[in-house]
Amino acid sequence: MTVSPPAGAIAPTASSVATKGPAPFAATQALAQRVFAELYAATRTSDAPGAGVSRPCYDAPEQKAHDIVAAAAKAEGLETSVDRAGNLWLDLPGRDADAPFICIGSHLDSVPEGGNYDGAAGVVAGLMALAHMRRNGIVLPVPVRTVALRGEESAWFGPSFFGSKGLFGQLTEKEFDARRRDSGRPLRDYMAQSGVCDMAALQAGEVLLRPEQVHAYLELHIEQGPVMISRRLAAATVPGIRGNVRHYRAACMGENAHSGAVPRWLRHDAMMAMADLMMRLDEHWRVLLERGLDMVLTFGICGTDPKVHALTKVPGEVNFSLDIRSQDIATLEAFYRLFQTEAAVVAQQRGVRFVLDERAGTDPQRMDERWVKRCQKVLAEMGHEPATVPSGAGHDAMVFAAQGVPSVMVFVRNEHGSHNPRETMTMADFMIGAEALARAAIDPVRER
Amino acid sequence: MTVSPPAGAIAPTASSVATKGPAPFAATQALAQRVFAELYAATRTSDAPGAGVSRPCYDAPEQKAHDIVAAAAKAEGLETSVDRAGNLWLDLPGRDADAPFICIGSHLDSVPEGGNYDGAAGVVAGLMALAHMRRNGIVLPVPVRTVALRGEESAWFGPSFFGSKGLFGQLTEKEFDARRRDSGRPLRDYMAQSGVCDMAALQAGEVLLRPEQVHAYLELHIEQGPVMISRRLAAATVPGIRGNVRHYRAACMGENAHSGAVPRWLRHDAMMAMADLMMRLDEHWRVLLERGLDMVLTFGICGTDPKVHALTKVPGEVNFSLDIRSQDIATLEAFYRLFQTEAAVVAQQRGVRFVLDERAGTDPQRMDERWVKRCQKVLAEMGHEPATVPSGAGHDAMVFAAQGVPSVMVFVRNEHGSHNPRETMTMADFMIGAEALARAAIDPVRER
Repeated sequence: MTVSPPAGAIAPTASSVATKGPAPFAATQALAQRVFAELYAATRTSDAPGAGVSRPCYDAPEQKAHDIVAAAAKAEGLETSVDRAGNLWLDLPGRDADAPFICIGSHLDSVPEGGNYDGAAGVVAGLMALAHMRRNGIVLPVPVRTVALRGEESAWFGPSFFGSKGLFGQLTEKEFDARRRDSGRPLRDYMAQSGVCDMAALQAGEVLLRPEQVHAYLELHIEQGPVMISRRLAAATVPGIRGNVRHYRAACMGENAHSGAVPRWLRHDAMMAMADLMMRLDEHWRVLLERGLDMVLTFGICGTDPKVHALTKVPGEVNFSLDIRSQDIATLEAFYRLFQTEAAVVAQQRGVRFVLDERAGTDPQRMDERWVKRCQKVLAEMGHEPATVPSGAGHDAMVFAAQGVPSVMVFVRNEHGSHNPRETMTMADFMIGAEALARAAIDPVRER
Repeated sequence: MTVSPPAGAIAPTASSVATKGPAPFAATQALAQRVFAELYAATRTSDAPGAGVSRPCYDAPEQKAHDIVAAAAKAEGLETSVDRAGNLWLDLPGRDADAPFICIGSHLDSVPEGGNYDGAAGVVAGLMALAHMRRNGIVLPVPVRTVALRGEESAWFGPSFFGSKGLFGQLTEKEFDARRRDSGRPLRDYMAQSGVCDMAALQAGEVLLRPEQVHAYLELHIEQGPVMISRRLAAATVPGIRGNVRHYRAACMGENAHSGAVPRWLRHDAMMAMADLMMRLDEHWRVLLERGLDMVLTFGICGTDPKVHALTKVPGEVNFSLDIRSQDIATLEAFYRLFQTEAAVVAQQRGVRFVLDERAGTDPQRMDERWVKRCQKVLAEMGHEPATVPSGAGHDAMVFAAQGVPSVMVFVRNEHGSHNPRETMTMADFMIGAEALARAAIDPVRER
């Protein structure tokens, strides 16, 4: 289970420290546990057992997390810096200081009352990789840098990925103006007040990091679904991140009527129409999965209006949200057309109308095929099944991949999903994922 | 369009007044319009055009309505009285004062922000029938009495039919304890405070009216559905009142999950399961109607919880209500079994649970076949289609029918349903319905 540099001419060089015999990667576990404990202690929401953490971005709790990681990195002898979007960088120099660097990243913010590992696990894994290499004198041909990105979660402001988008000059007025749900204050206030942002540069869309400066982007994250629990996988490689097509506020409009006095032929029952649409799409979804395509379909919000509904009232209106996700843009588009077609059929047959807000969405991102293979190979060498598990949630890796940076993610098994205090990643599983990530980074770097 | 007593030995006798030539029934229209206008003026909720009325029972607004009707009856020379449940009686003596009487009834309370005609139309029609007979000196072999019943609407307290149930000694502790939704105060407080109730008698379940004292119960009501609008019927006879089987608070329990990260095979989506159940039952309903059975099915409340739902969350819980109604108790029972069976299948197939509160309901009541035929005959004589339209809503006629009193209802066409200020009954349609009711009452009374 130790990471030793492979033999070979262009392999990383081990300094004199390593000649004493390399410390196993497992030696970094104490560091990880200490940082996780400090993060939890500093940002937990109460003293109750099982309390969650809250780390809103560009605010004191996220800053505390950044400070904890920076201090731990300095204690390992790593250089740290903060960029003009407020992201924290931990640096391990390579033989060629100007070569595009390997970037290991994730985020330190959390959702309200979230879990300690969503985001932080990836940053800590990056810290461990650097610490392991530095402790063992492993020097790669290129620099390796770990970044703690700001504001990845959408739970506070709606939009997200502020740190990575800021790096690439992609923040828009819409994002600066987005208001935090609890306080109602806009993101720009929090950024300005944080003291770590160059507001002029960010608002001008200045590029703080050119994609060609990055050799590859690697991100470890806990899985947010139950696939790895079900498939008994401790760690897995992510082949792609699902994109989505969404409607946030849609409605099926029928006609209110007395539940006892109006016969079936005179009804325009919005709830029955909605159920009809859902079952038609559920069947299309089932068939599509049988054809081997990747997709998920969710009506997360769906229901009659609690202000006016009643047992004795045929529903005249149902409000709903739609979330279609797939790794494949063609599948997304094809299924969205099915949604439109079936909605039109239901509307015609049941005398209802569907009213949709503006279509929203994000394109799916494939992970870099060579880096996916590299991670699979490393996991196989470590004695694990080299499985792939797609990511259904968005991650900063999407932002890097969209910039053309070869990107890959490693998932670690996690029960009970994320975004809640019940996330359950074992330290044993985490060590497997973190070691795989470190091995993938250390593996001979030949070309971009 | 005038009502003249049919020739025949046991026909009603016309007094000397009638020898001047009977006034047409249409002469009562001015009385009706005046009473409707007074009721509206006294109980409208605001001065805004189209404002609704609010007449909560055993409270000042309902009492005002009773006072208006009593005064109008007295002005017509009718005797009035109030029984120990607070119901108002208008009396027209018959030749045999001790014979079971024909009872024309309905209610004067309304839902909050309701329409002026729901209930009041039936009481006014009863007043018109009595006024018409008295003005023309028509004396039936039996007394004819019109009753304005208390508290028919369920909107204020949950339970309903307080006036008619009180008559038959059927009020229970549950009803006395029921709390008014706006004030939180129990019905017993309102009854006691009204000054018109004999609380001791009502709480002891004393029978204030024996069913055998009533020859027949006749009730005119606006239709609460759109069937008569669609079928172009001004008035129609009600062959039966649908009973119902209900669940007020039911839930489908699945499992919350991340909408992007959890594949179809690992989901327990409560909303999809609910849609599945609804579509299965919708199909059974369709088939059942094709077999000629009477039934309506409504999930009036159905949806994800607004406190916790989100676009990105697979619904873990859907709350719903169920309302199945039919004129036929066997259809109700059979369909309820289908509901149970299909819920079990969906639960098994989709890994969800259905949690039901106590089953509630009311038995359907058939109207008296001879009285239904009599009303149909009268409408045909008046030149109208002798159509029947079932009642989907409950009415006091159910309470009388359940006591074995031969009962019948006449519906009057009404747009936009009831229980809202937009109910639209035309005076022309009302006059047809009211005349049919009066003719049915006046028609020779041969036997019970």
